[in-house]
Amino acid sequence: MIHPRPQLAEVSRPDWTKDASRNPAMLWLDKNENTDPELSKVVAGVVASLPPETFFTYPEAARLYAKLAAWVGCLPHNLCLAHGSDGVIRSVFEAYVSVGDKVLHPVPTFAMYPVYSKMYGARTVGLEYEASDKGPALPPERIIAAIAKERPRVVCLPNPDSPTGTIIPPDELEAIIAAAGEVGAIILVDEAYHPFHADSVVPLITRHPHLVVARSTGKAWGMAGVRIGYAIASEEVAIALHKVRPMYETGTMAVAVFERMLDHADAMEASVTRLSAGKTLFLDRMEALGLRTLRGGGNFLHVAFGAHAEKVHAALSDLVYYRKDFAEPCLKGFSRFSATTPELFGPVITRIEESVRT
Amino acid sequence: MIHPRPQLAEVSRPDWTKDASRNPAMLWLDKNENTDPELSKVVAGVVASLPPETFFTYPEAARLYAKLAAWVGCLPHNLCLAHGSDGVIRSVFEAYVSVGDKVLHPVPTFAMYPVYSKMYGARTVGLEYEASDKGPALPPERIIAAIAKERPRVVCLPNPDSPTGTIIPPDELEAIIAAAGEVGAIILVDEAYHPFHADSVVPLITRHPHLVVARSTGKAWGMAGVRIGYAIASEEVAIALHKVRPMYETGTMAVAVFERMLDHADAMEASVTRLSAGKTLFLDRMEALGLRTLRGGGNFLHVAFGAHAEKVHAALSDLVYYRKDFAEPCLKGFSRFSATTPELFGPVITRIEESVRT
Repeated sequence: MIHPRPQLAEVSRPDWTKDASRNPAMLWLDKNENTDPELSKVVAGVVASLPPETFFTYPEAARLYAKLAAWVGCLPHNLCLAHGSDGVIRSVFEAYVSVGDKVLHPVPTFAMYPVYSKMYGARTVGLEYEASDKGPALPPERIIAAIAKERPRVVCLPNPDSPTGTIIPPDELEAIIAAAGEVGAIILVDEAYHPFHADSVVPLITRHPHLVVARSTGKAWGMAGVRIGYAIASEEVAIALHKVRPMYETGTMAVAVFERMLDHADAMEASVTRLSAGKTLFLDRMEALGLRTLRGGGNFLHVAFGAHAEKVHAALSDLVYYRKDFAEPCLKGFSRFSATTPELFGPVITRIEESVRT
Repeated sequence: MIHPRPQLAEVSRPDWTKDASRNPAMLWLDKNENTDPELSKVVAGVVASLPPETFFTYPEAARLYAKLAAWVGCLPHNLCLAHGSDGVIRSVFEAYVSVGDKVLHPVPTFAMYPVYSKMYGARTVGLEYEASDKGPALPPERIIAAIAKERPRVVCLPNPDSPTGTIIPPDELEAIIAAAGEVGAIILVDEAYHPFHADSVVPLITRHPHLVVARSTGKAWGMAGVRIGYAIASEEVAIALHKVRPMYETGTMAVAVFERMLDHADAMEASVTRLSAGKTLFLDRMEALGLRTLRGGGNFLHVAFGAHAEKVHAALSDLVYYRKDFAEPCLKGFSRFSATTPELFGPVITRIEESVRT
């Protein structure tokens, strides 16, 4: 047997041969995908319009870089496309993390931070959210103190975070970014849920050359299957991310779909409005039942069914996929649902109301 | 400025903001893509048939693993999907190469071998092809001697190689694979041009657990824009490759297109037959003009225009993209054209014949 790198000894990944396909007759609210049928039609229309060379040629992305820069409000030299925002995160590790470096991230957070930390031989400094009346809490001053004490190489901070949905307000976020700069750390702010949460640190890249913003097209844009995300950063960081990119940052089909979807930013925004309305409706109705909820900033929400949990889970079992519970103390007892439209949420709300009231 | 990992200091990549789009009115024979219009129709038909959830959901690839294993003739546990065969190559480096390891590969070869070697801090042992009457030559005994002497961690060997088109016969290739095993090296045989070149080392994975075969869908399958490739290896190596895979190996759209295209393997094979006929026609007509050619094993060919070069390049300049010349001594004076159909090659042949004869 030829052993892989020693850093991989502790990495384990799911069995790729096990089929986890979902039932198409049920609602898919378990993975924070965008299930808005209206936006889906727009994406399907764009795919149907692709010329044949999209499928058989290697990518050429300069036009997309120019168009995306104009939409984001930066220069093309501030961008690096990747296979999803996960590709951006991985590139940050690849560009900056050496064996023995420290990486600081909240716990719980996006599943790949601890995996990439192990993969690149980094020592993880995990900052646990505390359970509180208002849901998971991680005070910015705790993050700043940990940065000063641990002097990590990379700080990972999704805003909003997942699965907690927690948000760091703009001023406090900039203080954290500045603190990272003071110890020579790269700070990666994952804005995967933009613009469900409208605040963005993108305008700060000119002041903070050690800041990388990761963006996804899997949530608001409804393009999780297209697999294209992007980094926004100072030119010096963008050059480093391009150094570690694969042969091509992403595929021709992904480039072509995203380039055309940028002409439909209004449709993406209308979808965010619809899904946010669905989220508000669902949360209001859960609260009217006396249930505890967490609104959060992502395209998902939490509700604690409490004493009704068993009944509710049984009632929903043939209707909708969602995350039933969490092992982490800060989210214990909460179920998580991805936001969908008011129309699609309707039957889910009705079933929950029926179970809680009987 | 925050410096990236020291290993990246020598890595440089192209400026991503420079547009290198090609003119759609010309023939694209410069990147070894599959320009066969018949196969392109099949891929476009498959894309048109995709259900909407392909675009907005995260991938689930177990069905593709099962179907691909049946087509390849291995078990699903022997496979790892990736963003193109380039993704496979990179994963081999990520899984097995530590800073200071040696990586052995031919020169010239696929552009990313030296880039990934630098990126992962490996010392490169390059084996240069020699110029010969029969084209670039790299005797297997030289490779075997270098493996024994240098004891590399990874041996990279595309078969056929690119840009040389050279082939190593099956018995000699197995001797090289065995030699790599004796020094505890992983050997990566890149079969990107399968089945343009029909021989494959896939049946050897059961005897040689240190062998990884990389396959592309960008050549024979006409899916360069879809960006999906795969590794075939022993289960222990496949597990290591999965350890370093991103969050998802590839996107839902790529999984869905490839899964459906496997039902059209006959169309892929018919395309390979058409393109190979085009390649033979072109080479025969060039040889009839008295020009030197290299047939090679890939979906491309070489021709040396010699004293006619300037005239020929001028005559083709508004008709076709191709690679005019090579800096490497072993291919000096040769131009490279990707194979296309006899029909599409027709006008190119005519122009060359006219320039050479006048």
